[in-house]
Amino acid sequence: MASDDRPLALTLGDPSGIGPEIALAAWRLRRERAVPPFQLIGDPAFLEATAYRLGLSVPVAEVEPDDAVEVFPRALPVLPLPSGATVTATPGAPDSANAGAVVESITAAVDLVRAGVASAIVTNPIAKFVLTRVGFAHPGHTEFLAALAAREGREPPLPVMMLWSDTLAVVPVTIHVALRRVPDLLTQDLVERTARIVHADLRARFGLDAPRLVLSGLNPHAGESGTMGTEDRDVLAPAVAALRSEGIDIRGPLPADTLFHERARATYDVALTPTHDQALIPIKTLAFDEGVNVTLGLPFVRTSPDHGTAFDIAGKGIAKPDSLIAALRLAQRLAQSRADTVLPFPVRG
Amino acid sequence: MASDDRPLALTLGDPSGIGPEIALAAWRLRRERAVPPFQLIGDPAFLEATAYRLGLSVPVAEVEPDDAVEVFPRALPVLPLPSGATVTATPGAPDSANAGAVVESITAAVDLVRAGVASAIVTNPIAKFVLTRVGFAHPGHTEFLAALAAREGREPPLPVMMLWSDTLAVVPVTIHVALRRVPDLLTQDLVERTARIVHADLRARFGLDAPRLVLSGLNPHAGESGTMGTEDRDVLAPAVAALRSEGIDIRGPLPADTLFHERARATYDVALTPTHDQALIPIKTLAFDEGVNVTLGLPFVRTSPDHGTAFDIAGKGIAKPDSLIAALRLAQRLAQSRADTVLPFPVRG
Repeated sequence: MASDDRPLALTLGDPSGIGPEIALAAWRLRRERAVPPFQLIGDPAFLEATAYRLGLSVPVAEVEPDDAVEVFPRALPVLPLPSGATVTATPGAPDSANAGAVVESITAAVDLVRAGVASAIVTNPIAKFVLTRVGFAHPGHTEFLAALAAREGREPPLPVMMLWSDTLAVVPVTIHVALRRVPDLLTQDLVERTARIVHADLRARFGLDAPRLVLSGLNPHAGESGTMGTEDRDVLAPAVAALRSEGIDIRGPLPADTLFHERARATYDVALTPTHDQALIPIKTLAFDEGVNVTLGLPFVRTSPDHGTAFDIAGKGIAKPDSLIAALRLAQRLAQSRADTVLPFPVRG
Repeated sequence: MASDDRPLALTLGDPSGIGPEIALAAWRLRRERAVPPFQLIGDPAFLEATAYRLGLSVPVAEVEPDDAVEVFPRALPVLPLPSGATVTATPGAPDSANAGAVVESITAAVDLVRAGVASAIVTNPIAKFVLTRVGFAHPGHTEFLAALAAREGREPPLPVMMLWSDTLAVVPVTIHVALRRVPDLLTQDLVERTARIVHADLRARFGLDAPRLVLSGLNPHAGESGTMGTEDRDVLAPAVAALRSEGIDIRGPLPADTLFHERARATYDVALTPTHDQALIPIKTLAFDEGVNVTLGLPFVRTSPDHGTAFDIAGKGIAKPDSLIAALRLAQRLAQSRADTVLPFPVRG
């Protein structure tokens, strides 16, 4: 059949954050918002307790990997952790006692996708400082997934974070690093590798024949010919020239400040930026609740909501499931994609 | 009388850029958009030639400083340069032969405001590289105005650039410098001095009794307690604490990416940001054609359109006068302000 009828694998995330409650909220909106079938990997009893505490009548069903799609219409399918670990958590009070379960949920999700039982991975937010205490050494969620993907015996892939919404898609070339380090981290090689992955995945997964990329400058006004910083002239411009010579449609470096208004957005499919904030500011300004984090460059599809654990509002029942729902919907679209299927890429002008 | 009936002084800007044509366009829209009376300081014959080339029927009147308001309804008042210098320019082809006239127009505008003949200064865009060739050593327009203001025998004031629009007002604490230099330029002293000027001018000129300021972080997520760069914890947080102890309502450092969506904007009047792009990206995303550049901290009011010389479209008659008109209107509002007059500051939630 044309459409992928396997469920999505949704990870637990930090159980003291908003992950569990937005998963419950997304399931409740499954018909209204056409949420594709997913199974949460965690502890069924914990999800039941969370629903009870929030006063939500959500039936929770403990499932086997193959049962989720059938169960989904009538109950939230929860697949126990392989180790059988249980979870107890206080909303807003992260506890490193749950670090093992958080990590195990992620590895189990990768195993399910590898085994062909789940179609794609959607991850709930984690808090790195909780995991660091138990020896989690990866810079973040995304890098951990890349490391898991590398177990296939290949060189670890370069994971590329794209933030995607109906109005804008952006890729920060550097992400969670001190701004002071960015100018030295931003090598021509990194820009080229990132752009190649974006180009390839927009073709293969998003179905765009000739994706249109732009690259913003590092310095104000893209350095104005080297008068305000030399990186745009000496690093970014040569990277763009090399990529164009490979047939990739990319322009830049362009001044970052004039790249995100409506007329500018119509001229490209995705904007690459040297810094975290150059990418995150415009997408969170334009699409605060609807952004999705998509990891490109992995051998499987992974999306996640574009927000954190939000410990400050966890357990209050006010967290919005919009971004998680958008992440689930996009994951299914991407999992079903074939190179010959053009998906509607919304930012195409 | 309550309202200031003196004209605004509009500088020539680079005559090969779009300045002359947007001045003509603003004058033509004087009734429709309630553009306050202004006089352009330059060469009347050059403005006449520009209008003729564009096919615009704009009468140009050579005026004395005191005539502008009376003339304005029926002709564009142009005050000759004190030296009598003439201007010849080709649109899109900047020529350092005009550098003297460009600079003289700015100094003449400051003299008019000092003499009480003009109420405020509005500057057309200049191109620094044209002026640098003739020995112009100031980092930019704003710093030149501050140097002129310092002629009064006082310490040169710290000029503070605010970008203002109906939806957002922002102040980049560092502006036209290489990103690599920002972490070291961003001292606690600079942040405090900048915030004090913003606070004082929003009170004195914008009429806000208790302006609400926010400060974004330098690093992603404002450094996450020092795990991604230490400047937010060690430089910005102490600056905020010191400012609050003086009674200034400022919060921060806050993650820059979540500071500019609609709900966040309702919680403050102006956002200060460590880098150029953190401020310019959101305002140009939200208000591309309507932004105004306001210089705070000077002994006179100065505004300018929030765009450059746009040599690429100069002479084509397609440049939009919206930002210049917004700059003229705001300059008049600010010039008329008294500390006891509350002007509508649009971003107040």
